[in-house]
Amino acid sequence: MTVSTTNTDDQLRDSPDLLVHRYKWLQRRERADLFAILDAGTIAHVGFVRPDGKPMVIPMAYARDGEFLLMHGSSGSGLTRSAVAGVELVATISIFDGLVYAQSLFDSTVNYRCAMVFGRAVPVTEREREDCIRVISERLMPGRWTEVRPPTKRELAATYVLRMPLDMSSVKVREGQPTEDARSGIWTGYLPFESVVGEPVPQLGVDIVPAQSITMAADVWKQRLRRPTSAE
Amino acid sequence: MTVSTTNTDDQLRDSPDLLVHRYKWLQRRERADLFAILDAGTIAHVGFVRPDGKPMVIPMAYARDGEFLLMHGSSGSGLTRSAVAGVELVATISIFDGLVYAQSLFDSTVNYRCAMVFGRAVPVTEREREDCIRVISERLMPGRWTEVRPPTKRELAATYVLRMPLDMSSVKVREGQPTEDARSGIWTGYLPFESVVGEPVPQLGVDIVPAQSITMAADVWKQRLRRPTSAE
Repeated sequence: MTVSTTNTDDQLRDSPDLLVHRYKWLQRRERADLFAILDAGTIAHVGFVRPDGKPMVIPMAYARDGEFLLMHGSSGSGLTRSAVAGVELVATISIFDGLVYAQSLFDSTVNYRCAMVFGRAVPVTEREREDCIRVISERLMPGRWTEVRPPTKRELAATYVLRMPLDMSSVKVREGQPTEDARSGIWTGYLPFESVVGEPVPQLGVDIVPAQSITMAADVWKQRLRRPTSAE
Repeated sequence: MTVSTTNTDDQLRDSPDLLVHRYKWLQRRERADLFAILDAGTIAHVGFVRPDGKPMVIPMAYARDGEFLLMHGSSGSGLTRSAVAGVELVATISIFDGLVYAQSLFDSTVNYRCAMVFGRAVPVTEREREDCIRVISERLMPGRWTEVRPPTKRELAATYVLRMPLDMSSVKVREGQPTEDARSGIWTGYLPFESVVGEPVPQLGVDIVPAQSITMAADVWKQRLRRPTSAE
């Protein structure tokens, strides 16, 4: 592992910049909630300001590495060039959990889990790159690293990884039922949405059963994607 | 409907600003691909530059209204205040479709559908607001509008909707199998991820069966969330 720092504080940092203003009671302060969202999410939507001053949001694969977020994207992007200078970023990871049917449309809403990580991301050094790619690989495709050939020098050179500290993070979660009590004669409740993993689809010409890592990935992701059971 | 414009051109606008540079063969030029992603997506990740120059990315509920995107968010947000002045935005809608296992980790990738809409969003006028909210409501919770009481004046005043033209949009899609042909003895293929709608969960005290709109929403969303069958 490239990162040995472990923050033992179980609360997220308290900063005016991280305050949720709208529906502020939905803000979560537990570090565990941040980690759970990062572990269950699949895509980070990474925002930055382009050199021309316009906003950009690109979807990126990511992994949590201790107290850091590692992000791995297409290297031709403007983000890479900006990131060398330590670009200011925000990585937003959202999970849509369903539709909440209240007595009125105004009070109807959606259930979601959202984590925002603010700060500067810097490209990891060449020396660290392979380790970081392994961390991302193990998170996305657990077990595959040891099944296939290691990356070549050329492949490593063509890849980039950004690292961003998690210490400026804000978490907002809405779950469960409408806020008001039920009223006779009107159906209120929620319609849950969930991500599921399907059956592996082999490429044409594959002559063996799914590798151990595929079965493992399916199991691990099924666990991760499961909506946390809300207290109702 | 608030919008009567219909663009009959079936191709997306061709502009150097909209060119995909990395894996450029994954870019899609059909308007139908843009519409399909917007219809299947659940959250728009909306990026803008805050007054202090820092990037922000917030998750928003949205709907497509003809050639426009309508976005509906928490009104206390900085975005609303900025948007009055016609803030430059990018709305990125991504769908994660699964993990692609190639012969090497370097060639392994993810399947996804991504639409980026660039431009300025402006708040809809007070007169248009109810219509726009209905469009968003019908998209998220089809049929519910007529089942519940209409929004009050006060509720409408407390709500805001941004409208953004779709004419500066870029679409990128990766689907199906790894690029290289299969090789004997190594499992290659993909592990599909999919969003599914669960069973409606009534609130405690609800004394009737799910309303017609709930069943309809479940059906409509099941259709929308289904991964398009790729040509393999």
